[in-house]
Amino acid sequence: MPQVTITRRMMFNAAHRVHNPALSDEENQAIFGKCNNPNWHGHNYTLDVSVTGSIDPRTGYVIDLSKLKEIVEREVVSKADHRNFNLEVDFMRDTIPTTENIVVAMWRVLEPHIAPARLTRLVLWETANNYVEYDGK
Amino acid sequence: MPQVTITRRMMFNAAHRVHNPALSDEENQAIFGKCNNPNWHGHNYTLDVSVTGSIDPRTGYVIDLSKLKEIVEREVVSKADHRNFNLEVDFMRDTIPTTENIVVAMWRVLEPHIAPARLTRLVLWETANNYVEYDGK
Amino acid sequence: MPQVTITRRMMFNAAHRVHNPALSDEENQAIFGKCNNPNWHGHNYTLDVSVTGSIDPRTGYVIDLSKLKEIVEREVVSKADHRNFNLEVDFMRDTIPTTENIVVAMWRVLEPHIAPARLTRLVLWETANNYVEYDGK
Amino acid sequence: MPQVTITRRMMFNAAHRVHNPALSDEENQAIFGKCNNPNWHGHNYTLDVSVTGSIDPRTGYVIDLSKLKEIVEREVVSKADHRNFNLEVDFMRDTIPTTENIVVAMWRVLEPHIAPARLTRLVLWETANNYVEYDGK
Amino acid sequence: MPQVTITRRMMFNAAHRVHNPALSDEENQAIFGKCNNPNWHGHNYTLDVSVTGSIDPRTGYVIDLSKLKEIVEREVVSKADHRNFNLEVDFMRDTIPTTENIVVAMWRVLEPHIAPARLTRLVLWETANNYVEYDGK
Amino acid sequence: MPQVTITRRMMFNAAHRVHNPALSDEENQAIFGKCNNPNWHGHNYTLDVSVTGSIDPRTGYVIDLSKLKEIVEREVVSKADHRNFNLEVDFMRDTIPTTENIVVAMWRVLEPHIAPARLTRLVLWETANNYVEYDGK
Repeated sequence: MPQVTITRRMMFNAAHRVHNPALSDEENQAIFGKCNNPNWHGHNYTLDVSVTGSIDPRTGYVIDLSKLKEIVEREVVSKADHRNFNLEVDFMRDTIPTTENIVVAMWRVLEPHIAPARLTRLVLWETANNYVEYDGK
Repeated sequence: MPQVTITRRMMFNAAHRVHNPALSDEENQAIFGKCNNPNWHGHNYTLDVSVTGSIDPRTGYVIDLSKLKEIVEREVVSKADHRNFNLEVDFMRDTIPTTENIVVAMWRVLEPHIAPARLTRLVLWETANNYVEYDGK
Repeated sequence: MPQVTITRRMMFNAAHRVHNPALSDEENQAIFGKCNNPNWHGHNYTLDVSVTGSIDPRTGYVIDLSKLKEIVEREVVSKADHRNFNLEVDFMRDTIPTTENIVVAMWRVLEPHIAPARLTRLVLWETANNYVEYDGK
Repeated sequence: MPQVTITRRMMFNAAHRVHNPALSDEENQAIFGKCNNPNWHGHNYTLDVSVTGSIDPRTGYVIDLSKLKEIVEREVVSKADHRNFNLEVDFMRDTIPTTENIVVAMWRVLEPHIAPARLTRLVLWETANNYVEYDGK
Repeated sequence: MPQVTITRRMMFNAAHRVHNPALSDEENQAIFGKCNNPNWHGHNYTLDVSVTGSIDPRTGYVIDLSKLKEIVEREVVSKADHRNFNLEVDFMRDTIPTTENIVVAMWRVLEPHIAPARLTRLVLWETANNYVEYDGK
Repeated sequence: MPQVTITRRMMFNAAHRVHNPALSDEENQAIFGKCNNPNWHGHNYTLDVSVTGSIDPRTGYVIDLSKLKEIVEREVVSKADHRNFNLEVDFMRDTIPTTENIVVAMWRVLEPHIAPARLTRLVLWETANNYVEYDGK
């Protein structure tokens, strides 16, 4: 059976501050620069959720994209959109909200909801010029 | 010898209806919703064709992109562009025209024409927010 | 009072056939070529709706974008999305569904709903390489 | 002498909260919804700065783009990038930081610096799906 | 009769050097910096050609886009694509090949070929971050 | 430890001529066509540099993106931007400047500078419709 990967792109907007509370303010400023601004900044994030599996011969689908959209909306987008990653997003508690940490946390939240297909890749764009990928390994 | 992958992006427009003739109209409507509209709808598809191989020291090419474009144009784009996937595209006969099934069918059509390089990935965008990948496995 | 223009971009997918029923099949084929395919083809349309007005000092808005989105969704997108422009879209009845005619018809449908702001421009992209603009004149 | 318009696109990231301090919290929530989140959210803004004038026959330029970039960077981008529009941006003081108000404020800051060419249009994208234009009128 | 504007986007690649032969090498270097490199550099140019007119009731078209594409291909794209603007493009002879000068020269070449519709705007993108517009005035 | 991949996108403009000096002019013309123009042509190249590693718990980063940007700017972009790949770029000496050869050469230049993280993919776009990938194998 061919294994096919289907991706749904979704967008959300959020505020954050790259800050490690275990370090001093001076250390945070030295490491993170303007990303450490205590008054926050934010981004239009783009999230590509990729799911792999066999094609169901009855539907021609690996997964119904409208169901995938519902899962991603419910589990991660609705919790992050128009929110502050440092203050309000439960799956980011006690985690520095870098793109790297956000994508790993989103994987852990989403992965149990995708079966019987398999979550195989998340790509999170922070700006038009940088993005992070994670495949669960 | 370094193995390098080169990709050519091509576009075409087509109509389709996501419909399984083995099911009742009610079942089709329940499963596929507005994508099952009997009067059709359509898309601007974007197809990324990726080919891998060694670099020919005489040309600096893995494959001549103008030849790759000719192959893809002749074998799949000319057969799908401004066509109806359910009614007119020979390589989609008896297949539900989901993006998943289209990409697998295009792989089977294209793969024999790429040697001595190797077709290694097809990505088919149905809209700006969803796409399907297949690598022949 | 500064006059500011705000634009909401929306997308929909539809099928069509460029065909003038007052002409013979041969004339239609000669004029419209592959766009005249009797089995239809389709596009991912992108519609940019621009509204101009003064900024309301209470809200900082020319128009509430969520209200503008609702109007456009209700009046034109829901009627065209996953539909056939020749067969099913009431505001296109007896009209050749070229991008030019679609954009003028959408203007006539939308314009009465935008007051007290003013509809000042519609841009309709048919593909990534062609689009049509209309400003009501 | 032909009048030509040249545009430089620039990007910045910022946090904001759409909030009118003259209204109650309940009114703010009713009007602005999730955009009123007291914990902020943010965007990747894209700013297109358009300047019109004659072409200098000595340089072939309307304006040296590297000088235009310096002006925009110094006057608006450096003051907004990785900042909070409600708390930190001097030209937005006492102004609700909607895209409409930001673009008018940026016009007033930039316009005196462009002579002898003329600032003729600012376009500010808040997301990939909405943008605001202002031409100084 | 509604006046509608239709735009065709086309792309080409070319080399150039921003250089005024009436100035010394030192002056050229001081004014144009790295754009004056005597060994050339180049760009992927994107040209948007906009044509305005009434909609022909027989076709639903302002202008047949395939005919517009042929005109633009024949008159400007085929002369500039994979060419050197300083050495090989007849309509740029004795002109500094800035984006401003290219767009005005292209207007003069294209304008006589568009009647009975009217050429109303050319937009020429030199990079993803800068573009020039000309409307014939 | 999760292995995460982070990508920085960068852009540069360059001239080149696809030409093998070991072949005759007629052979070069037959193989490379318009890409062999002796007067050069050029492109806006987009380079995506992907680096993989564990997330540093102190920073939340795989690699500091501003440091990655500095490395790529210093080692490859500053040497290629506004330059001629055939005449001026040291890492392309004696190499036909196809996209395939450029990406392999850039890999060899960049790879030693990325440790302790690992360079895992380079993608080089020559135009909006073709790109080359290399992963070091």
